[in-house]
Amino acid sequence: MAEQTTDVLIIGGGPAGMMCGITAAQFSPHKKVLVVRPESDAVIPCGIPYIFGTLGGTDEDMAGRAPLLAAGGQLQIGQVKQVDRQQRTASLDNGDVIHWERLVLATGADNFIPPISGLDLAGVFSIQKDYNYLDQLFSTLIPKVKRLAIIGGGFIGVEFADEIRKRGIEVHIIEMMPHLMQAAFDLYACTAVEKQLQKHGVQIHTGCKVEAVIADASGKQVAGVQIAGQDLLPVDAVLVAIGTRPRTQLAQDMGLTLSRSGGVWVDAFQRSREDPHIFAVGDCAHKQDFFTRKASHAMIASQAAAEGRIAGMNLYGLRELRFNAGSVSVYASEIDGLAFGVAGMTEHQAEQEGFPILVGEARLPDHHPAAMPNTTEIYCRVIFARDSLQLLGGQILGGTTTGELVNTIGLAVQMRATAPDLASMQFGSQPRLTPSLHPLVAATGDALHKHFQGQHPCVESPA
Amino acid sequence: MAEQTTDVLIIGGGPAGMMCGITAAQFSPHKKVLVVRPESDAVIPCGIPYIFGTLGGTDEDMAGRAPLLAAGGQLQIGQVKQVDRQQRTASLDNGDVIHWERLVLATGADNFIPPISGLDLAGVFSIQKDYNYLDQLFSTLIPKVKRLAIIGGGFIGVEFADEIRKRGIEVHIIEMMPHLMQAAFDLYACTAVEKQLQKHGVQIHTGCKVEAVIADASGKQVAGVQIAGQDLLPVDAVLVAIGTRPRTQLAQDMGLTLSRSGGVWVDAFQRSREDPHIFAVGDCAHKQDFFTRKASHAMIASQAAAEGRIAGMNLYGLRELRFNAGSVSVYASEIDGLAFGVAGMTEHQAEQEGFPILVGEARLPDHHPAAMPNTTEIYCRVIFARDSLQLLGGQILGGTTTGELVNTIGLAVQMRATAPDLASMQFGSQPRLTPSLHPLVAATGDALHKHFQGQHPCVESPA
Repeated sequence: MAEQTTDVLIIGGGPAGMMCGITAAQFSPHKKVLVVRPESDAVIPCGIPYIFGTLGGTDEDMAGRAPLLAAGGQLQIGQVKQVDRQQRTASLDNGDVIHWERLVLATGADNFIPPISGLDLAGVFSIQKDYNYLDQLFSTLIPKVKRLAIIGGGFIGVEFADEIRKRGIEVHIIEMMPHLMQAAFDLYACTAVEKQLQKHGVQIHTGCKVEAVIADASGKQVAGVQIAGQDLLPVDAVLVAIGTRPRTQLAQDMGLTLSRSGGVWVDAFQRSREDPHIFAVGDCAHKQDFFTRKASHAMIASQAAAEGRIAGMNLYGLRELRFNAGSVSVYASEIDGLAFGVAGMTEHQAEQEGFPILVGEARLPDHHPAAMPNTTEIYCRVIFARDSLQLLGGQILGGTTTGELVNTIGLAVQMRATAPDLASMQFGSQPRLTPSLHPLVAATGDALHKHFQGQHPCVESPA
Repeated sequence: MAEQTTDVLIIGGGPAGMMCGITAAQFSPHKKVLVVRPESDAVIPCGIPYIFGTLGGTDEDMAGRAPLLAAGGQLQIGQVKQVDRQQRTASLDNGDVIHWERLVLATGADNFIPPISGLDLAGVFSIQKDYNYLDQLFSTLIPKVKRLAIIGGGFIGVEFADEIRKRGIEVHIIEMMPHLMQAAFDLYACTAVEKQLQKHGVQIHTGCKVEAVIADASGKQVAGVQIAGQDLLPVDAVLVAIGTRPRTQLAQDMGLTLSRSGGVWVDAFQRSREDPHIFAVGDCAHKQDFFTRKASHAMIASQAAAEGRIAGMNLYGLRELRFNAGSVSVYASEIDGLAFGVAGMTEHQAEQEGFPILVGEARLPDHHPAAMPNTTEIYCRVIFARDSLQLLGGQILGGTTTGELVNTIGLAVQMRATAPDLASMQFGSQPRLTPSLHPLVAATGDALHKHFQGQHPCVESPA
């Protein structure tokens, strides 16, 4: 048993832990910053689906440790079993004890495994963010599997389906909700994504409940998926991708308060309720919605990394240079040229919350004139609170610029932009790079036009 | 001589006039909206350089009149010779008289022709935003010219050079300043653009003053350009592209106040000083800088169109739904895969104005992991006011998303975002669409890191 001392101890080395380590090392260069994680090699989480298609292997998706080391941080491989808050120590599985001054929990999340029989069979897997696991999965899955069922039609299910079908594997997506990605997008976008997947042979089973995963004659290997009220769907592998839950055993053992939704309770600087020197970041930490302060269940790498940066900057005194204003959904993905993204609330979410809304839309080519090469249509939809005209969210269907357009909408939401701000926004337009009119400005103009017609009798259509 | 009556008369049918007409027709549907312009067919201004290369002809760059007509507006071809403010009439060159209730001047700009001898020779041209002119230029230039000199190394000169060299024409750019595009970018970007052009054979003559354009033996046709202190540069055509000046003869004849810099003086709703029912928009209107309130000399289609929309919405009563907060530069372009853009102030401009500044930079791949297909490096540079940490501007060198990244920076400037806002910004990241870390967040982090090191002795490097 060895004892060592660090100033900052970060438990977990995914995007949240690593970004926290890098930031802490940059902003507190006299402090020793140590990240401890169980995985010897980590992968880039968002890149995982692409390992199985576009990237062609796990080695292309490595998350390097170089940025942490370059910033002056250190990395140790190990599993923290126990933390003593009074003594300010952490004990590892090998018996090592680490003394710390600031502690950051970045323990991540576990895949949610639903109570369905047969999920323990060989051939059933979920996504683990670990190099060795994924590398083995890749070499097992790609050459051997002919028919794959994916349980869950969210981002991971959809991206994984589109990648693995490129390997000639027959893919089925099974989703309980009436549409794929319905939690993230309004219906028109969900159906556009469904059509794009179907065009490439992915078979979609929506509104379907999985009753059981069925074994073959050996009783050990997957043979099919039993969907309620349907014939057995024969497959030789199953991916379970229906979400994750904060991994908080260590936090609970330490006596830290969890939120009702299961994450470690944290303030706007990612500090725990019990001790301002103990922080939590990423999937294990509670998230609060930007608009409503309700719990947010989004667990994505970009959000996790942002929380890591916030904690990293505020470990030794609050600087108000970074803070957590609450979670805003900002997502995008692409299937074979159709990109789709969302920032803030969808129309459905806003209505569910009780906002009277004002919606605007625009459709325009992503270059101009439309005869420019590689031109794709952009569809932009924006949602405002009807009375204050504050932007609540927006969605984009489009081409290569969709991710950055969604980020622009996300910034506008976070800066609490109103429709007049956006209608009056100045932007650049260039034939090779952008539409002639910014999609956000165009869709906001449409919304204001509707707003104006509704409010002013003088502009209603003549009798 | 015919007489007619309209509610709204817009003089000029470029981006400002047409967008004003469309917006006015949408927001005042009971009013008759008439655009009068001399050009029977108009082109999309930003697309003009691409007519000569990528688009392969003028027909691909037409600015349609359909959106105006669809909104309920009307278009008439004609030249307004005189306006009577008291009678509220406009007289056309054919003797027609139009009675109006609201008048919008959208008369555009004239090319600035410097006092250099020989600019009246055959083979010397400038860019006119007129279909017939450009169509004739295309059919004269492309088959006959072997060597072209472009006087002026701004956006138009650079884009035109890159397009026309694709037709096998030898191109020389002559610029008085030490670098191309120095008015818009900081030096590192200027030199990157210069290298990209040189790679494709464009010859660049910077720090060079043109003394005269020289005729051939006939005395009528261009034979070369005389640069001060150099041998004659033999060419058979010359493009003059050194800027434009507001076209305000009509406004002056009407007795409207011009700003000292030559545009029609307008308020934040584009109204003239003399009459709240007379507006001016686009290149002919005065522009005020967003930061300093000094005159801004930027004349670009996106800005002109924005002003057209502001006037169109405020013709019949101020609505505070659109307003002009002052000009923010937001530009981008691309040369053969190297895109470059700027929003707000450059470092040089900020220093010239007297801002103590804080600069941050970041360099990262535009997809992640970097092994994803079509990955290009993005370089992002951001400039903050050192004391308030308010964002003053940013620049991007990158790939296909450069235009939208610059628009995000532009929005951040206009929303008066600070470094803490941007460091704390949530964004989406997706392997096919974006970097893992938003370039604006990364560069802001770098700036804050520098800021923090400078302010807090405890984090200075150990003695």
